Amino acid sequence: MIKKVAITGGTHGNELTGVYLVKKWQKSPTRIKRSSFETITQLMNQQAIKEVRRYIDHDLNRSFGLTDLADKTLNSHEAKLAKELDGLLGKKGSKRPNVDFIVDLHTTTANMGLSIVVSNKSIITWRAIAYLCKMEPELRVYRWQGDIENAFVDSIAPHGFAIEVGAVPQGVLRADLFLKTEMLIYHLLDYIEKENSGDKLELPTELEIYDHEVLVDYPRDANGDIMAMVHQKRQDRDFMLINQGDPLFFTLENKTITYEGEPRYTLFVNESAYYEKGFAMTLAIKKRVLIKD
Amino acid sequence: MIKKVAITGGTHGNELTGVYLVKKWQKSPTRIKRSSFETITQLMNQQAIKEVRRYIDHDLNRSFGLTDLADKTLNSHEAKLAKELDGLLGKKGSKRPNVDFIVDLHTTTANMGLSIVVSNKSIITWRAIAYLCKMEPELRVYRWQGDIENAFVDSIAPHGFAIEVGAVPQGVLRADLFLKTEMLIYHLLDYIEKENSGDKLELPTELEIYDHEVLVDYPRDANGDIMAMVHQKRQDRDFMLINQGDPLFFTLENKTITYEGEPRYTLFVNESAYYEKGFAMTLAIKKRVLIKD
Repeated sequence: MIKKVAITGGTHGNELTGVYLVKKWQKSPTRIKRSSFETITQLMNQQAIKEVRRYIDHDLNRSFGLTDLADKTLNSHEAKLAKELDGLLGKKGSKRPNVDFIVDLHTTTANMGLSIVVSNKSIITWRAIAYLCKMEPELRVYRWQGDIENAFVDSIAPHGFAIEVGAVPQGVLRADLFLKTEMLIYHLLDYIEKENSGDKLELPTELEIYDHEVLVDYPRDANGDIMAMVHQKRQDRDFMLINQGDPLFFTLENKTITYEGEPRYTLFVNESAYYEKGFAMTLAIKKRVLIKD
Repeated sequence: MIKKVAITGGTHGNELTGVYLVKKWQKSPTRIKRSSFETITQLMNQQAIKEVRRYIDHDLNRSFGLTDLADKTLNSHEAKLAKELDGLLGKKGSKRPNVDFIVDLHTTTANMGLSIVVSNKSIITWRAIAYLCKMEPELRVYRWQGDIENAFVDSIAPHGFAIEVGAVPQGVLRADLFLKTEMLIYHLLDYIEKENSGDKLELPTELEIYDHEVLVDYPRDANGDIMAMVHQKRQDRDFMLINQGDPLFFTLENKTITYEGEPRYTLFVNESAYYEKGFAMTLAIKKRVLIKD
């Protein structure tokens, strides 16, 4: 039984869709009110939202590892904020969590369409995703298992995932993608209501997902500055196959660098926030996973 | 006779196209070398480039008014930088300027395509634009005469304009638009070479331009926060006509606000950096102007 759901926005202060969806629901809470559970909303990094920046000191959505949450010596803006938010929406790993399900709202400058980033293995999480895929066939699922310790916002609750929608520039609200994200949340709340009521959901028995394999960095010089950009023929090709020999980067010397690996799918192609993290795109493998009914 | 041209990038630190074009040319200066004049390049706001922010204290591209340049009491990061850059590339209003022509490279999150923003009235400036329009028929010209005192970067030289290319998210290099911007610069250098040599240029005798009329702000609440976004049917419609009754904004209460003015063209629709400046788009009138041969 899901008793409490948190919809979180503004984990990154320059991703306005989540910020303004939360503001919308704080003004009109009946839109997200359901009979069998409570829905709360939270603006996560209010200082970063005010400054329209991703973060103040470091990425809040990498700050919820158990080790960092337990480390009292960490006192950056986001380290302190993560502890505060974990107290409110966690506590992470607790047997009596404050919130059962977290959905964290993001946008990306990559052409990711409507997508989910999931690390959680819980059956409820995956049934929710299966329901959303049934209701929104354009939705795609990216499974991230790249870190030793999951430090995402949604990791502090027993169930949850992030929604990533793009292409949206930082600091911009695009009405079309705002409305699609909003619709996805209403489907999620419907799912939880039905799951709580024991409704027959007729979920798909298996799902197509994109499983994280590896991050690909830009070619860089000795100072770490990029020496090439995503090739014009790879730009916007998120969730699309890349084969050996396909154009990958285009250098400042007008040379094309080709892809030399096994066939994979490219995701988060040319996401603005990942230049500093050291990757130009993600490579993923398409798989089918079973959904338990 | 044009003796010195400056190509400036990174006036806004999160507009990477200009930054990396300048870096490209600093590595390969022969690409912009021509026989009859000198071409220099300048990274304008290096601290903002490092932080991938538009500016540190305030907008550098609004900091070149003569009054501000003469005011010794102004000591913000950009006020000091503007004085320094005016010493290097100006001096503004001088009879013996250091640079004859400035082209300042920008990107926008709006769907502006390949466009020029011009305030300068000089014949050379307009002949250059006419040549570029001849070489790149998709190029559009936006004339800005909105300020009492022109405070743009290009205002410190006798001739010049800004190039605005979009849609590009902040902090992103898009190879397709990078290459189009680069090509435009080569055309500009070719023009100057030909003009200096007295070549017959066969310029168009008149040009279609979009003349600035007025800025349109978002609906805002008492705290100045936006209460609506650009309507999904107006998004991406830069240089396109808006008529009375056309959808303009979509509110957080799901209401459509329609346009209630005379037919105009919308420009800079939903540019990220203009949320804080207080406008959602520009309205312009399409005109034809004569080019002197």
